[in-house]
Amino acid sequence: MMPVKLLKPTEEAYQYPLLIKQLLLSSQRYAGDNEIVGGNNGKRYSYQEFNERVCRLANVLTEAGVKAGDVVAVLDWDTPRYLECFFAIPMIGAVLHTVNVRLAPEQIVYTMNHAEDKLVLAHDDFLPLLAQVKHELVTVEKYMQLSDSDTPAEAPLKTMGEYESLLKGALPEFDFPDFDENAIATTFYTTGTTGNPKGVYFSHRQLVLHTMTLAATTSMNDNMQLMQVSSVYMPITPMFHVHAWGVPYVATMMGLKQVYPGRYEPATLLKLFMTEKVTFSHCVPTILQMVLSSEKAKAIDFSGWQVLIGGSALTAGLASAALERGIQIYTGYGMSETCPLLSTTWMPLNADEFTHDQQVAKRIKTGRPVPFVNMRIIDSNGRFLPHDGEAMGEVVVRTPWLTQGYLNEPEKSEELWANGWMHTGDVGTIDSTYTLQIRDRIKDVIKTGGEWVSSLDIENLISKHPDIELAAVIGLPDDEWGERPHAIVTARAGASVDRDAVAAHMQQYIDEGLIEKWYLPDTVKVVDEIPRTSVGKIDKKVIREMLKSNG
Amino acid sequence: MMPVKLLKPTEEAYQYPLLIKQLLLSSQRYAGDNEIVGGNNGKRYSYQEFNERVCRLANVLTEAGVKAGDVVAVLDWDTPRYLECFFAIPMIGAVLHTVNVRLAPEQIVYTMNHAEDKLVLAHDDFLPLLAQVKHELVTVEKYMQLSDSDTPAEAPLKTMGEYESLLKGALPEFDFPDFDENAIATTFYTTGTTGNPKGVYFSHRQLVLHTMTLAATTSMNDNMQLMQVSSVYMPITPMFHVHAWGVPYVATMMGLKQVYPGRYEPATLLKLFMTEKVTFSHCVPTILQMVLSSEKAKAIDFSGWQVLIGGSALTAGLASAALERGIQIYTGYGMSETCPLLSTTWMPLNADEFTHDQQVAKRIKTGRPVPFVNMRIIDSNGRFLPHDGEAMGEVVVRTPWLTQGYLNEPEKSEELWANGWMHTGDVGTIDSTYTLQIRDRIKDVIKTGGEWVSSLDIENLISKHPDIELAAVIGLPDDEWGERPHAIVTARAGASVDRDAVAAHMQQYIDEGLIEKWYLPDTVKVVDEIPRTSVGKIDKKVIREMLKSNG
Repeated sequence: MMPVKLLKPTEEAYQYPLLIKQLLLSSQRYAGDNEIVGGNNGKRYSYQEFNERVCRLANVLTEAGVKAGDVVAVLDWDTPRYLECFFAIPMIGAVLHTVNVRLAPEQIVYTMNHAEDKLVLAHDDFLPLLAQVKHELVTVEKYMQLSDSDTPAEAPLKTMGEYESLLKGALPEFDFPDFDENAIATTFYTTGTTGNPKGVYFSHRQLVLHTMTLAATTSMNDNMQLMQVSSVYMPITPMFHVHAWGVPYVATMMGLKQVYPGRYEPATLLKLFMTEKVTFSHCVPTILQMVLSSEKAKAIDFSGWQVLIGGSALTAGLASAALERGIQIYTGYGMSETCPLLSTTWMPLNADEFTHDQQVAKRIKTGRPVPFVNMRIIDSNGRFLPHDGEAMGEVVVRTPWLTQGYLNEPEKSEELWANGWMHTGDVGTIDSTYTLQIRDRIKDVIKTGGEWVSSLDIENLISKHPDIELAAVIGLPDDEWGERPHAIVTARAGASVDRDAVAAHMQQYIDEGLIEKWYLPDTVKVVDEIPRTSVGKIDKKVIREMLKSNG
Repeated sequence: MMPVKLLKPTEEAYQYPLLIKQLLLSSQRYAGDNEIVGGNNGKRYSYQEFNERVCRLANVLTEAGVKAGDVVAVLDWDTPRYLECFFAIPMIGAVLHTVNVRLAPEQIVYTMNHAEDKLVLAHDDFLPLLAQVKHELVTVEKYMQLSDSDTPAEAPLKTMGEYESLLKGALPEFDFPDFDENAIATTFYTTGTTGNPKGVYFSHRQLVLHTMTLAATTSMNDNMQLMQVSSVYMPITPMFHVHAWGVPYVATMMGLKQVYPGRYEPATLLKLFMTEKVTFSHCVPTILQMVLSSEKAKAIDFSGWQVLIGGSALTAGLASAALERGIQIYTGYGMSETCPLLSTTWMPLNADEFTHDQQVAKRIKTGRPVPFVNMRIIDSNGRFLPHDGEAMGEVVVRTPWLTQGYLNEPEKSEELWANGWMHTGDVGTIDSTYTLQIRDRIKDVIKTGGEWVSSLDIENLISKHPDIELAAVIGLPDDEWGERPHAIVTARAGASVDRDAVAAHMQQYIDEGLIEKWYLPDTVKVVDEIPRTSVGKIDKKVIREMLKSNG
């Protein structure tokens, strides 16, 4: 460290730790009449009531014995109640564990034991599961019932009571203490295709800095005003998933009207969108697809709806369809390990002159890094690659809001943070305008003759063959080239294809200079069905094993 | 401190200190074609050139022997060069001292010795002064000439060379180090009516947090978009004065087009406003008054100009005149000790329905606190007062960007920070919408019979008497009431007034219930002229002495 002149960091009087409670300071200032609306039970709260309910919850939790450092788990759909947990639990110094309720029961048990949950707040829908597995939950001491009904049914296991009645009995004031801004505020688990879920964790400081940067990013671009004080926010990414991308904290800091839809059913989402006049949401592509294609959506005017897409790539088809329905659609990029926001679509000032196709092309790009995000691409030796839109390398980042590792997984944590940068596991290009384009996962990219070739790029080109329905490309070890691409394809009904047909098809792209000749797969195997994972993604691990044993 | 679960704050690998260099990360990303324009010499720089020039300056400084912790002084008008100093000097770990060039020579010498300036960068206009006093500047080792001319005149004292030629000879790359975010980045002096100037100082962390909060605040209100990426920014508050309110850091972080006007001459300001299509400026009321009343301004269409007023109160008259000329005018509140921003006008969502008078009334209010600003009013016993728009108390604040004291002034620092809050020395009310209204300086407020009475309020009411030109009101000790108000007034030409006339005039406000009867001054003295300070403010210290000795 350099011998800089320092403030007096030890004198507490002057300190102003960045704590989640500070985000509440402004929540009532800017648009005092705004409400927080629960789609789950139709309840509406003013920000003053919300602040009081956060205090009541803090009193309930501390009276139940929750201490600073304890982990409190929540299993709920998206509700104002969950938003109260986003604040009250970390604000008393405890850690909020947002349990992924879509995991298999044994994985839920694994994460709850691994995180050492002490108190569990669970929606009626999840109490039967908890009743079943409670003897396996070795650290849990108490349960609290969360019910959407004013007359809750009896819980199938012993609880300390129902949320609303407990809040009613508690005082609406709480003196939230100051503490170290590096205190862990939240934790949750990210699932890979292999092994157990891995826990990531974020501090108060990290969440506050993420919130402030999002607030600036989402409003400072004239052509892309995702959130302003007039906005009405409804998440369609679950609150258990990377704190609904951190947006509930931003919306609360800005004092926006917020709408929490409960479970994600297209009819409910569409009704809330219309009746509450929602202007901003974020979701994965499949949810938007599902909403747009539902029967009820046909009659709805979606103009004025800003939707940020993340989680997986936004396709040109969906972007085009959304724009045609009046939706201002954008891409965001990030992951559980990154809190999550790293980059978003960036609309230039002359975007209103763009054609529809230019609009689509711009909006499906992975986008430009938000302030404070230092993003680079590196080759397999860890060297920085140029930002020329051509060089492809692994995306590594430094920002103030990255998980410091995986909970109790020292080896995986070290891998994540090799050489002082967080490794995203994604491979992409960055161009001279700082725009990132993700091209592949690093475990799927094919390293051949010193070059990196995106398996997705080859798949996309092969798929353009009129007789091919679907293609999957993987790399297999090769003595001469390190790795070589191999493909499996399915033919369209009634058609037949072989390697020669694929080679002839690819030759045109080689002739056009679009790809190099080493993009051509060494083998092309025609199959009846391409292996998929439980969530429907192409299972490259299985394909790799299949082709290896065939070879 | 609570036993919270902590991240590993000692492991440097994961740290991301909040440093000024991080603000540069995004400067080229969002509007790459924008320029930084110098009104002083007509030079224009792209952000890429600007980044390179910051590196060149860092090389010049370090080669000149500047080390981390050294203080580097700048005496300059508002130039792109000064902006380069805003970044390069703190980014090498040194402290930027922005010297107030409007101080008297002996005060400039005092501040430069007190701050222990080592290297001094000075504009041609200030070199003669420095040549004169150089033997009194006990810590200064070297001088650098700043010239607006391509062929600089010879300097009247020995320098290490002229800025531009030094930059030309330096490399355009510099590896800026990481260091503790609590490192002091800037220092400058605030002048009171008595005693020596007092030094305040701010860390990298403080400036970064101030910048991010401003970026969000200035763009998130639909009805008050001071800065967006399409904005063109021109400061009209000197860069030596609280870093031009910190806005140059915000504009650079957002990559805006920036225009630095050099010296503040109305003709230059107006020309730059028109030719560079300026959309956002900030200044004190007198400068805007001067610009608007200049002959050249009469033909200019000011619509689209957003102007934030601070430094002293925005009057209804100026606000009304500005609005009539098409200027969107707003109030900001803060001071040297607060970095400076604490609060701004906050336009509600229905502001477009406001009448002209309602617009004026809203815009001259001191405004609502920006995010992270914890603002309270306290009585003379330090107790918090209610936010009812009635109770008047001293404004105290906590935010992440307050000076920790006055440089080497332990007693005054303790007073500033009594009871863990920073005392602004201002007296005001806060209403239920969190809107602050400053009413007086605490040293001028009259404490009578347990009540606080604003001397400004009494002055305003007395001044409404048709025969009175100007009124000044001060408090004098009183055995029964603690203090009682006393007034001195000047009569309009040809008119005469006395205490009875003032009493009769004030009686109507008492009858209307607008004021209490104890607002009526005990004595009213008619004078030919009201004493003023050197900068034209009513000199209450002198008036107090005058009336005391008369009593």
